[in-house]
Amino acid sequence: MKIICITGMPLAGKTLISSFAKELGIPVISMGDKIREIAKRNNINAKDIGNLIFEIRNKYGKDAIAKQCYEDIKKINSDVIIDGIRNIEEIEYFSRLGEVYIIAIFAPRKLRFERALKRKREDDPKNYEEFIQRDIRELNLGIGNVISLADYVIQNDKDIEKAKEIFLNILKEILGK
Amino acid sequence: MKIICITGMPLAGKTLISSFAKELGIPVISMGDKIREIAKRNNINAKDIGNLIFEIRNKYGKDAIAKQCYEDIKKINSDVIIDGIRNIEEIEYFSRLGEVYIIAIFAPRKLRFERALKRKREDDPKNYEEFIQRDIRELNLGIGNVISLADYVIQNDKDIEKAKEIFLNILKEILGK
Repeated sequence: MKIICITGMPLAGKTLISSFAKELGIPVISMGDKIREIAKRNNINAKDIGNLIFEIRNKYGKDAIAKQCYEDIKKINSDVIIDGIRNIEEIEYFSRLGEVYIIAIFAPRKLRFERALKRKREDDPKNYEEFIQRDIRELNLGIGNVISLADYVIQNDKDIEKAKEIFLNILKEILGK
Repeated sequence: MKIICITGMPLAGKTLISSFAKELGIPVISMGDKIREIAKRNNINAKDIGNLIFEIRNKYGKDAIAKQCYEDIKKINSDVIIDGIRNIEEIEYFSRLGEVYIIAIFAPRKLRFERALKRKREDDPKNYEEFIQRDIRELNLGIGNVISLADYVIQNDKDIEKAKEIFLNILKEILGK
């Protein structure tokens, strides 16, 4: 089984790019959704999710969210996309379940900030200071290491159609389709 | 003055890409050369440079190598490329001297390893274990954070001519030339 791990800084476009995999019939598991599910179950406000991520990892280990995906992966039992990798320990965990590939989605900082102001998801930063704080939070989780060790990087700046095409070609290359 | 900071994992091709800036008449300062100069002055073997980098930073601060570039930057006194940024503190230091842009050079891990075996610079890894150790050393310096916060990323995998073209276009965009 091939496990294709998608990573990238906030608002680089991980979820959008990942969703295109469905066109090739490849299922997508979202680690962000897993965290939001846990938050909902525990009546935790979306704004506190940042703290929740730290709490879960401190309490149950750096690969705790990855472990939450185990049941889904077992159920799917075929090549799968995991969206939202945050650290090397998650990569190590998935490597025990299958053959791992890392794809990093990249967008320039300035563009990611513009997207934050547009998207306005409950946990999105409202101004540049909050945006930088969120970047630092993600980097403290170790995401910079995963991005730097990627097997592929996809630029998702201006042309989303081009980014999509590159992504689908990478998937075909990995899966030999 | 614009200070264009080049970063990237070992053997991503930072030095080669940076050298193309000379075609536009933009001078390049190599932080790697600064470290090797210090090593030479102190009769330190190239193989021990990894330790030296840590020593200098521990003793004189995380922006110590950046500070070594100050005289060169002052002498040049125009837009300049700095090759070999390793951490955010260096970025912060250069931000006090000019307007900073970060360009990350990216190559897949597998390809970087192949290049290590080919290049054989004295401090290059000889096998995959040494290669991974060097990657970890660089990540421990904080390079993953700089890469993740880049303004631009250039893929330097197969087609060097294409990477060069993209780099020169980015420089023109930054410098308005």
